[in-house]
Amino acid sequence: MSKVLTTNQLRRIPRYLSYLRTLSASNVSYVSCQQIAKSLSLNEEQVRKDIALVSKVNGVPNKGRNIEILIKDIESTLGIDNVNNAILVGVGSLGTALLNYKGFLNYGLQIIGAFDKDINLVGKTINGIMVYDINEVDLVLKKLKAPIGIITVPSNNANEVANLLVKAGIEAIWNFAPTQINVSDDVIVTNIDMAANLATLSHKLYLKHRKIEKENM
Amino acid sequence: MSKVLTTNQLRRIPRYLSYLRTLSASNVSYVSCQQIAKSLSLNEEQVRKDIALVSKVNGVPNKGRNIEILIKDIESTLGIDNVNNAILVGVGSLGTALLNYKGFLNYGLQIIGAFDKDINLVGKTINGIMVYDINEVDLVLKKLKAPIGIITVPSNNANEVANLLVKAGIEAIWNFAPTQINVSDDVIVTNIDMAANLATLSHKLYLKHRKIEKENM
Repeated sequence: MSKVLTTNQLRRIPRYLSYLRTLSASNVSYVSCQQIAKSLSLNEEQVRKDIALVSKVNGVPNKGRNIEILIKDIESTLGIDNVNNAILVGVGSLGTALLNYKGFLNYGLQIIGAFDKDINLVGKTINGIMVYDINEVDLVLKKLKAPIGIITVPSNNANEVANLLVKAGIEAIWNFAPTQINVSDDVIVTNIDMAANLATLSHKLYLKHRKIEKENM
Repeated sequence: MSKVLTTNQLRRIPRYLSYLRTLSASNVSYVSCQQIAKSLSLNEEQVRKDIALVSKVNGVPNKGRNIEILIKDIESTLGIDNVNNAILVGVGSLGTALLNYKGFLNYGLQIIGAFDKDINLVGKTINGIMVYDINEVDLVLKKLKAPIGIITVPSNNANEVANLLVKAGIEAIWNFAPTQINVSDDVIVTNIDMAANLATLSHKLYLKHRKIEKENM
């Protein structure tokens, strides 16, 4: 199914998938939209619409939807029924953490190679993933054939690395560097900004403490 | 300075900080707003306004702003000039990756304890951080005194864990579980949804490949 999903649907649908997989792991076979909505604190009508969008199979009266079918339908809608290969550039602290993280495969992503400019890291493996010299990215990507590039370099190098990746044939960039990346429009870029997220949390906490201090003065 | 920053300011200002720290590490002493804007691909006028908001110290003609002062002013504005202690609940693959990540301290966050329900993990240390029994969170938090709780449990347990943390005195929750968390309004919650982010990337890539297939038919 080749549907274009909205940002909000792309936020909710992976949540259904995560929940359904948890049920499946507990040997539950059927679930109703009502149950999904309740467990995930979502509006039931919204869940019904989303599920109708991703799956054409009807529910069984008094039982609900078949969970295994629903999981397959969601994976197919998200485009993660086939695993996407990815490479990662920047084997620092964050890069190493992501190379060691085993949860990406649940969302159809497999990191098959890493790159760094630090010659002391090149040739090592982390969690079974080989670290290559970033200067050889062109050559290595010809062999590895990964459409996705994960960027975990410092912000001042991020765009330079993105340009290298695009030149080497990368089609989509998952950017963890806290900066904007400018590449040609046909390259897909999504950003995950942990620093901004954490700054928001710290700032709100700071304001809360200031307010409490003032109230106690 | 107790300013309330907007979401967009909270997205940009940590980027300045990251960039300024990189310059500082390279022994650069001064930077202009023009340079910051250019390096981060941002609008110069916007950068000027943001910098004026966080720092009252004027630039030196032909040199720009003193980088060390600017870094201190930004840290103070964000509320990360003092380190915030945090605890983490859910020592699975993502939790372990975050416990091993050394970058949080750059944004004023220090994880000082971890919790899990798995008795085989309790008593172990990861990157020097002790894992405690989640059933003892009340008791342990009385000693640890951390205002921030990081949640990395599966989505179906996330709200239950959030309730436990709030009951034990946690003031702010950084939620990595792909689900909504409902707690009382005086608790600060920010979400980072890696699954939704990755699903967006995979879905766009999938649509792109479908389009190319159709064009070649």
